[in-house]
Amino acid sequence: MPHTLTSNAYGKSRVRLTKVVRNPQDPNHHGVYEFNVNITLTGDFAASYTDGDNTKIVATDSQKNTVYVLARENDFDSPDAFAKLLATHFVETYEQVTAADVRVHQTLLTRVSIDGTPHPHSFVGGSTETRTARCSVTPEGTRCCGGISGMVVLKSAGSVFVDFVDDRFRTLPDTTERIFATTVESTWRFTSPDADFNAAYDAIRPAFIKVFAENHSLAVQQTLLEMGGAALDAAPAIDRIDLEMPNQHRVPFNLEPFGHANDATIFVTTDEPAGMIRGTVERS
Amino acid sequence: MPHTLTSNAYGKSRVRLTKVVRNPQDPNHHGVYEFNVNITLTGDFAASYTDGDNTKIVATDSQKNTVYVLARENDFDSPDAFAKLLATHFVETYEQVTAADVRVHQTLLTRVSIDGTPHPHSFVGGSTETRTARCSVTPEGTRCCGGISGMVVLKSAGSVFVDFVDDRFRTLPDTTERIFATTVESTWRFTSPDADFNAAYDAIRPAFIKVFAENHSLAVQQTLLEMGGAALDAAPAIDRIDLEMPNQHRVPFNLEPFGHANDATIFVTTDEPAGMIRGTVERS
Amino acid sequence: MPHTLTSNAYGKSRVRLTKVVRNPQDPNHHGVYEFNVNITLTGDFAASYTDGDNTKIVATDSQKNTVYVLARENDFDSPDAFAKLLATHFVETYEQVTAADVRVHQTLLTRVSIDGTPHPHSFVGGSTETRTARCSVTPEGTRCCGGISGMVVLKSAGSVFVDFVDDRFRTLPDTTERIFATTVESTWRFTSPDADFNAAYDAIRPAFIKVFAENHSLAVQQTLLEMGGAALDAAPAIDRIDLEMPNQHRVPFNLEPFGHANDATIFVTTDEPAGMIRGTVERS
Amino acid sequence: MPHTLTSNAYGKSRVRLTKVVRNPQDPNHHGVYEFNVNITLTGDFAASYTDGDNTKIVATDSQKNTVYVLARENDFDSPDAFAKLLATHFVETYEQVTAADVRVHQTLLTRVSIDGTPHPHSFVGGSTETRTARCSVTPEGTRCCGGISGMVVLKSAGSVFVDFVDDRFRTLPDTTERIFATTVESTWRFTSPDADFNAAYDAIRPAFIKVFAENHSLAVQQTLLEMGGAALDAAPAIDRIDLEMPNQHRVPFNLEPFGHANDATIFVTTDEPAGMIRGTVERS
Repeated sequence: MPHTLTSNAYGKSRVRLTKVVRNPQDPNHHGVYEFNVNITLTGDFAASYTDGDNTKIVATDSQKNTVYVLARENDFDSPDAFAKLLATHFVETYEQVTAADVRVHQTLLTRVSIDGTPHPHSFVGGSTETRTARCSVTPEGTRCCGGISGMVVLKSAGSVFVDFVDDRFRTLPDTTERIFATTVESTWRFTSPDADFNAAYDAIRPAFIKVFAENHSLAVQQTLLEMGGAALDAAPAIDRIDLEMPNQHRVPFNLEPFGHANDATIFVTTDEPAGMIRGTVERS
Repeated sequence: MPHTLTSNAYGKSRVRLTKVVRNPQDPNHHGVYEFNVNITLTGDFAASYTDGDNTKIVATDSQKNTVYVLARENDFDSPDAFAKLLATHFVETYEQVTAADVRVHQTLLTRVSIDGTPHPHSFVGGSTETRTARCSVTPEGTRCCGGISGMVVLKSAGSVFVDFVDDRFRTLPDTTERIFATTVESTWRFTSPDADFNAAYDAIRPAFIKVFAENHSLAVQQTLLEMGGAALDAAPAIDRIDLEMPNQHRVPFNLEPFGHANDATIFVTTDEPAGMIRGTVERS
Repeated sequence: MPHTLTSNAYGKSRVRLTKVVRNPQDPNHHGVYEFNVNITLTGDFAASYTDGDNTKIVATDSQKNTVYVLARENDFDSPDAFAKLLATHFVETYEQVTAADVRVHQTLLTRVSIDGTPHPHSFVGGSTETRTARCSVTPEGTRCCGGISGMVVLKSAGSVFVDFVDDRFRTLPDTTERIFATTVESTWRFTSPDADFNAAYDAIRPAFIKVFAENHSLAVQQTLLEMGGAALDAAPAIDRIDLEMPNQHRVPFNLEPFGHANDATIFVTTDEPAGMIRGTVERS
Repeated sequence: MPHTLTSNAYGKSRVRLTKVVRNPQDPNHHGVYEFNVNITLTGDFAASYTDGDNTKIVATDSQKNTVYVLARENDFDSPDAFAKLLATHFVETYEQVTAADVRVHQTLLTRVSIDGTPHPHSFVGGSTETRTARCSVTPEGTRCCGGISGMVVLKSAGSVFVDFVDDRFRTLPDTTERIFATTVESTWRFTSPDADFNAAYDAIRPAFIKVFAENHSLAVQQTLLEMGGAALDAAPAIDRIDLEMPNQHRVPFNLEPFGHANDATIFVTTDEPAGMIRGTVERS
């Protein structure tokens, strides 16, 4: 029975870059970017699969070098700009590359302040939250998306869940007071590859947090949609946003066997199982 | 600017089940399944997003209960069969559920042998490799896929990489002797939801290993295609297979500064960066 | 050849608790503690090992229950106080328990501010950094230790490393400009179990950051000692501090093959291998 | 208040080495070692801490080089032998090093068999289980320890837990049928640094598995002691063994609300919380 290679792609993943940017006016004042880069190329590579003929293969090691060299040769002020720079490079440089998809995760570093003064070159890190960017250059054009990954938020009031399907598989009671904890994963689509990427990020993150805090949540679903809508309102440069919000349960510990009422104070913290709620919101 | 919820889905992730199956002929002889189940439902759920109206929502907690209850009430002999059972259940039970997608990862347990005799109820585990299954029930029908995730293989000879693009970004020399290490991620598509899932798995895994070991690799790409073709040859019940094989580099440690030739004996073991090679093979 | 059980201990690990504390003056204003608790008991438990006689065994499940029940029945304002409460409980409650060692890791939650106003019940989390506490109650008395784990800091200037041993195993040049990145692990010992635990934590953390930022580092070792000394100066309630600071290298990417000078701007971000530097500082 | 550096140590952690060993009689037949090496040195290093004077500091980068260079220059047949080689090297080479402690974790690779024939250079990996070795060279002499880490075992019968302390914190009923799952962590001490390390490992691992499978467990504690005793019986070259065995619970899912008896078939698989049982067994 014959068979055919019907699609293929390759690239380099987990290329980690630290770039120090010195302020020309004040060379002792540093900015630091920490990026984790993933590259996927598609194009005329079938001969490598079928015959081991690598003459059109840009080695993934060369792709890795490209990340560091282009970071040196170019200025950029966002992970989105760096993703666009790389994706464009691969398509423009190699005839056999028909499309390049570059994803960048930026580790967040917060500048240290000492006695209220920002320090010129010291930072605190360690957040699970990253800023993400993705740029795809294809024959149809250039598409850029920004995002937030791993943003952990928790509220200990203002979340209820009632009136859901009641059948033989249900044991959960209606809950009028619960903890709502989640790790937000979101990506948004820019209408133009020339958008102001930082303006969107700077507007969307606080919009998420404000809605999460203030929305009286009737369901994770409802909060998710409101967060997506707020992001669209805050960032005119985007026209679509995807959100995924796991419901990371804090399960009430049953205090009754120990002579106490269950008064929404003591919970078992869990990672799994988790609810998983997704939605896409677009301008209409 | 108005906006619309253009797609949505929800479910329960990371539901972990251990089921003990007693042989009716010999109740002391046990089989043990360990599954990690992820459920995604799509359907008429928009009211929960737009209005916090949960009357059509099957709580993710109820979905979790369903996993355990259906595991108790049904016999099954593969993760694929259990995924199909669950996905079918959700679509058949709830009018508002138009599609269900269930993914199962099975932890591998190897029965202990003592002095050559298989033990009736003791097992060794601890592999990163899992067997995977996915079943989607949609208005178009039922689609089942099997798979292998996390299969670590390494060969210390029989792998070369030469004659790739030489430009200013290349520093890697041609290599006629290298270590080829990867972690195979693969999923295959069954032509029928009534296929013999175990027969396919039992044929594909050794086919992968045999090709990986015996193929004289001119590129990861070439080995990947040959592995995919061997799987199609071994398992008539499938018609498509996807493979992703990161190139997990063992980088030669440069011994020259220390007075030794670099003779392909001493390598730096790395996880990142990694090459990333993908392909899809279908019957033609 | 006979053998003897020469030491033993058991307990419960990874007990995760979320406690909501309502302000009596303003019940809508919440504090939230998230603790990960590990308990180790030693005592008269040998019969369980030698004979499977569990009559003196406090089940680890009961220990888990104790964490939640005591959290409900007691007020506390620090992980240290909760660790002391638990350790004291086990020794005082069970005659067969001669010593109890309780370790608590507190997940850090930062209260959300909306337009400058702290929100009563919403928080952002997601830091790898935790506050730690450990309390050991033994026949010799009660010993409390506080700590910080997983505090990621990075400085892009003010770190040199020169004049180290030069022999055949050295290839690293003297470096007068490098990135210094580490993840601080530190524990400190209180002179009294009645110390003001929060005052010490609140003084030590900024002392660490200030020294890390301002110290002109001649070696990780030197910065570590200065950080330890600053902590002792800042927190009179402690008399000893242990620090472990891995040197998490940012390796200069060699730009010379690409026609650029190596000007301390472009680095490969790595997790491994890492230097590992430890020291203990005590009042003299 | 003055303070003093009362202890210090430094070294290199997570040095990962892959070594290919070619059989001199059959160079196409390879053995492959994959080691993760951690080095800690103690000695006359205080000047680096107090004054940033690095003249006695062997850079951790040089330590890393040493791992690769000594792996090239020496034959060894176990992680223990390599740990001893490295620890001895540092103490013998540098006057200022008074003690060296080297720990090696060996990733397990299983040679592939094709149609019953072992393949000369292909392996399957991916186990969480590692073989460990530790060698400390101090002024008192050389001490070697072997070990096993991450060995996952599970038995679905032959484990009970009854008659433990019954007080207000207990909710767990006596259990006469439960799943016993654990991840064995064990280290053993050799009486001589010239012991046959492989003989001990090859005897202890199957002894562990045999006892785990065959012991009718009245408590994890009891099984642990029996495993330790069996190891001492199997390996005359050791005189002490430490074991740590978390009780990784499979919690019965309560089927009663769903109309089924709880018949020890359906369990919730958990990682946390976990019991934690430890013991040390020595020849008497």
